[in-house]
Amino acid sequence: MIVILKENTPKEVQEQFIAQLKQYQLEVHRSQGVHTTLLGLVGDTSAVDVSKIESQSFVQEVKRIQEPYKKANRKFHPADTVVEVGEVPIGGDHFQVIAGPCSVETEKQVCQVAEQVKKAGAALLRGGAFKPRTSPYNFQGLGEQGLGFLVQAKKTAGLPIVTELMSEEDLPLFAPVDLIQIGARNMQNFRLLKAVGRQNKPVLLKRGLANTIEEFLMSAEYIMAEGNENVILCERGIRTFETKMRNTLDLAAVSLLKELTHLPVIVDPSHATGLPRLVEPMSLAAIAAGADGLMIEVHNNPEKALCDGPQSLRPEAFAAVMEKIQKTKAFFQTL
Amino acid sequence: MIVILKENTPKEVQEQFIAQLKQYQLEVHRSQGVHTTLLGLVGDTSAVDVSKIESQSFVQEVKRIQEPYKKANRKFHPADTVVEVGEVPIGGDHFQVIAGPCSVETEKQVCQVAEQVKKAGAALLRGGAFKPRTSPYNFQGLGEQGLGFLVQAKKTAGLPIVTELMSEEDLPLFAPVDLIQIGARNMQNFRLLKAVGRQNKPVLLKRGLANTIEEFLMSAEYIMAEGNENVILCERGIRTFETKMRNTLDLAAVSLLKELTHLPVIVDPSHATGLPRLVEPMSLAAIAAGADGLMIEVHNNPEKALCDGPQSLRPEAFAAVMEKIQKTKAFFQTL
Amino acid sequence: MIVILKENTPKEVQEQFIAQLKQYQLEVHRSQGVHTTLLGLVGDTSAVDVSKIESQSFVQEVKRIQEPYKKANRKFHPADTVVEVGEVPIGGDHFQVIAGPCSVETEKQVCQVAEQVKKAGAALLRGGAFKPRTSPYNFQGLGEQGLGFLVQAKKTAGLPIVTELMSEEDLPLFAPVDLIQIGARNMQNFRLLKAVGRQNKPVLLKRGLANTIEEFLMSAEYIMAEGNENVILCERGIRTFETKMRNTLDLAAVSLLKELTHLPVIVDPSHATGLPRLVEPMSLAAIAAGADGLMIEVHNNPEKALCDGPQSLRPEAFAAVMEKIQKTKAFFQTL
Amino acid sequence: MIVILKENTPKEVQEQFIAQLKQYQLEVHRSQGVHTTLLGLVGDTSAVDVSKIESQSFVQEVKRIQEPYKKANRKFHPADTVVEVGEVPIGGDHFQVIAGPCSVETEKQVCQVAEQVKKAGAALLRGGAFKPRTSPYNFQGLGEQGLGFLVQAKKTAGLPIVTELMSEEDLPLFAPVDLIQIGARNMQNFRLLKAVGRQNKPVLLKRGLANTIEEFLMSAEYIMAEGNENVILCERGIRTFETKMRNTLDLAAVSLLKELTHLPVIVDPSHATGLPRLVEPMSLAAIAAGADGLMIEVHNNPEKALCDGPQSLRPEAFAAVMEKIQKTKAFFQTL
Repeated sequence: MIVILKENTPKEVQEQFIAQLKQYQLEVHRSQGVHTTLLGLVGDTSAVDVSKIESQSFVQEVKRIQEPYKKANRKFHPADTVVEVGEVPIGGDHFQVIAGPCSVETEKQVCQVAEQVKKAGAALLRGGAFKPRTSPYNFQGLGEQGLGFLVQAKKTAGLPIVTELMSEEDLPLFAPVDLIQIGARNMQNFRLLKAVGRQNKPVLLKRGLANTIEEFLMSAEYIMAEGNENVILCERGIRTFETKMRNTLDLAAVSLLKELTHLPVIVDPSHATGLPRLVEPMSLAAIAAGADGLMIEVHNNPEKALCDGPQSLRPEAFAAVMEKIQKTKAFFQTL
Repeated sequence: MIVILKENTPKEVQEQFIAQLKQYQLEVHRSQGVHTTLLGLVGDTSAVDVSKIESQSFVQEVKRIQEPYKKANRKFHPADTVVEVGEVPIGGDHFQVIAGPCSVETEKQVCQVAEQVKKAGAALLRGGAFKPRTSPYNFQGLGEQGLGFLVQAKKTAGLPIVTELMSEEDLPLFAPVDLIQIGARNMQNFRLLKAVGRQNKPVLLKRGLANTIEEFLMSAEYIMAEGNENVILCERGIRTFETKMRNTLDLAAVSLLKELTHLPVIVDPSHATGLPRLVEPMSLAAIAAGADGLMIEVHNNPEKALCDGPQSLRPEAFAAVMEKIQKTKAFFQTL
Repeated sequence: MIVILKENTPKEVQEQFIAQLKQYQLEVHRSQGVHTTLLGLVGDTSAVDVSKIESQSFVQEVKRIQEPYKKANRKFHPADTVVEVGEVPIGGDHFQVIAGPCSVETEKQVCQVAEQVKKAGAALLRGGAFKPRTSPYNFQGLGEQGLGFLVQAKKTAGLPIVTELMSEEDLPLFAPVDLIQIGARNMQNFRLLKAVGRQNKPVLLKRGLANTIEEFLMSAEYIMAEGNENVILCERGIRTFETKMRNTLDLAAVSLLKELTHLPVIVDPSHATGLPRLVEPMSLAAIAAGADGLMIEVHNNPEKALCDGPQSLRPEAFAAVMEKIQKTKAFFQTL
Repeated sequence: MIVILKENTPKEVQEQFIAQLKQYQLEVHRSQGVHTTLLGLVGDTSAVDVSKIESQSFVQEVKRIQEPYKKANRKFHPADTVVEVGEVPIGGDHFQVIAGPCSVETEKQVCQVAEQVKKAGAALLRGGAFKPRTSPYNFQGLGEQGLGFLVQAKKTAGLPIVTELMSEEDLPLFAPVDLIQIGARNMQNFRLLKAVGRQNKPVLLKRGLANTIEEFLMSAEYIMAEGNENVILCERGIRTFETKMRNTLDLAAVSLLKELTHLPVIVDPSHATGLPRLVEPMSLAAIAAGADGLMIEVHNNPEKALCDGPQSLRPEAFAAVMEKIQKTKAFFQTL
């Protein structure tokens, strides 16, 4: 961390400030120019609150050099983390596809889709029981009942299940869930992050609509700092000025995340684009970008879907995409 | 709502779909062109799930005409809502300033700032006890203890207090709080919105960093739909590509919100810009834009602030700004 | 400028690099930490090409401290610049309103509007002859003929005129024009900037839709570096995710620009919002933010406008807004 | 196009308006609801100026259904366009890589890089002679001399050349150039678009930093409407809030563009990310997304580059990436 002091900061003030900084267990190197004094802070600055330093009247600017995340940082943990979901490993050499309906609607629907996606090669079943919706007047998910249907599908098809947690108070209901999803709108719901950090099921953390890569990693750090290091990151599109697609899928972020962190990174092309015909090219592009997995919406009857039908693939279309996904993954493994 | 059907949608399919739509208590008007068939849906479409309609294979596009919010909509409630916070009214003819430190740090600090902002003309005291921070390693607020200090300041200075709620489970602690703040990062934490909608203290809802005006109103609608209609909206800057300021303050949104909704709308220039020297011009501009109040950070010792010190005004600077705020408000009332 | 070197950069490489840097007439201060070596560059770094330094394999990061603009920088030119347009001064104590139709359509139309806006208090007449339109199939302006009508209106009403230049090759036609506008889409058309920098008419430079404040000032610097220091900046809204308004008006940028530069800064609320009913509040808010002027679209028959009719005010509505603008400006002058 | 009239628009006004609309050679279908009257406009609406219709006082809203571009529209031209650059075809079954230095610096440099990229498999040579730079104080390119060096390299290596045109007045110098590049900052420099539309060399049009996909296609339409239908589109990243990369590469836009238009679409991963280590994964991902080509910066000595050195690959790194590009392209051709 570099602290740039304002011109004419008195020597005594500088000395006093340096003494304070040393309390953080940091070495401080002073570089005195004609107009500018720079302080270089060396050591673990992740606990240093930049805003506290910026508050000093004699500080002109603070520049962070070291990343503020530690547990998620590949520098301190070079090997890929492999997260076990049920008995399915994700990360490292293990590429996996999560598929299923946006919302759980009936037991029959979810069981049927589960069988179909399993047959096509998906390793995990997704399905929403608690649904975050922009409007209070739209379908909010079947809740506990939906969770029950999902658990039934898990048994029938033998696939681990992933579903979204919207509130800490629902955690007791999530005992049979294998992977807890934190949705994009809750990426900085810090209390929820801490709550899932204090339990031991793996967590699928989706990137917020307007969150930077660093904020994304800091939210993973929240979970990890509480003790749960089984975090999977999911890029699902960010919000930009473009209106032809639901969001703008940021695939370069996937490649960059793979460099910055050891955690698995997956991609959700369904939510990112909102256009089912873009699911195939974006799935293949995500593999090329280095993704450890995909999360794809599949519905056996998108026209009757209670939510997000238009972005879902039908099972037969999904099976066709899966075939290309598998070939593409195999190709890149040998490239 | 207008539904545009794909070319060559068979008459029977159209008839069947129209019959389904009528179940929402809507009138349906069909307009048959050479290539396009339009269906105009007349009635209360706020409960219609656009994505369900878009899922139909024969639907090309759906365009909403009516706003999806009802309780927050000025069309159905033309008079300004006045929200009573403690005994302080906000909205309609009542313009108010909320001031205080970003974080509650000590009882002395918050009591002292409370006295000072009251003397300068602030009507409510703000102060954070539970703090949403990007890093788990930064100061997270004093929590329950901080809330106690704030309550002490409330007694000493005789100002109603506003503070942020980060989790429904803290609600019992909020009994002495007069106005519950929902932070920008929780604007679409729908479970938290429902929770504050089920209790009867007024709610200060901050706009999310990347949320549209319509999503902002839909989040207010979530609270109102649960029974609590005492919602104050707060514009606090949105996230853009600009890096010289913390956020981009959207004052045109204030004028537009005043037209779309009857709820009070206030502005937080401290968080919006992150630059204390912009607090004065942006406060005055907010009044010109029609804001019903302001929320300003004041710290008696910004250099020692445990959080967001750099954007705080000192009490004497705040007093000077308040004088201009009051004169400006008086000017615009007679313009 | 601070250059952060990678760990383990050999001493000789450092020495050689420092020698190179000194060729820019800079002092170089080295600060050696355990892991990091910082070089502080002191002097005029505006000519230093950051990307060249970043290209060195041993450089980790470069941080600019000094602003890269000089002629536009208030630090080196503390007094407000007053730009004379015809005989109308803008900047410093001189607040002015520019008004007129988006496009020049007929001689009668523009002369009539000119008389009306003059009567209401506008000091300059605007009108587009060459129109930048998204579609090649939409009305592109009357061109040279339109310029002729505008010149006629200038004579009739006795107002200096401002109109947009889209290509250097049209400059000879602009002899009777008093203020040359460079549109938002050409803010980084560097050849056009150089061309208007080489002639001596004042220039109205509009901020690009996605350009930062620093890029905006660098584009002014382009004009000034060629010798023409009569540049007026115009904030006209930036592009964000919000769709209810044409753009997001960034009024905090106005206050910040007034601090960073000595050049006059005006605001165009018509293009910024696209909603005529927001012109009044945003005009008054712009004055509060410190703007030196406003640019407002007025059309005597918006329904017949060949372009941008929906955002224009009728002359009588403009006169009502002008009255409030004048009172508001007078109020803030005494505040 | 659908026009929604305000409630209570008198029948006579409606009739008169419909008569006006029919002058555009459109059929007009009226749908009368209880509160709303809809007019459906059928026919070629690309020449209809939406803002003119919105200006009518009785019009509530206008919704376009048909795309406003015709010549670029795949609907009216289903087969892929193949653009011939020199003797190199791009588009359809022809995937090509364009490579070379950001700026032309010396004859030796560009000739050497040309040989190297040709050997590695590039089909075209890029190199900037006229450089758009944010700062007037940074290297602006060698201009005409640089063009000469590039032409020399073309002869030596036998590769067609592509370079950026910044002003119409330089067109005479571009006689030996094979593909004229219009840079991102000039994407809506409509006069320049018209100028390259009136000549017959193929044009490489880069997407603007904050331009939508529709605006991108409308800019291609500007060129095509003047008679030059040889346009290649280039996605090079858009501007968002993310700061870790230079821009956000929008690969979903590539897949969507391939659906909307018959024109070839290529990707520039060097400018999009600004990080040379992301060039490989983003090149492969672009192929997966359906790109017809890539544009990659290669410099034989990035540390000495006069511009954009940090994002360039060295020739040997480029050769390694090219091998993977070729294998990946071959794989996807058979998938």
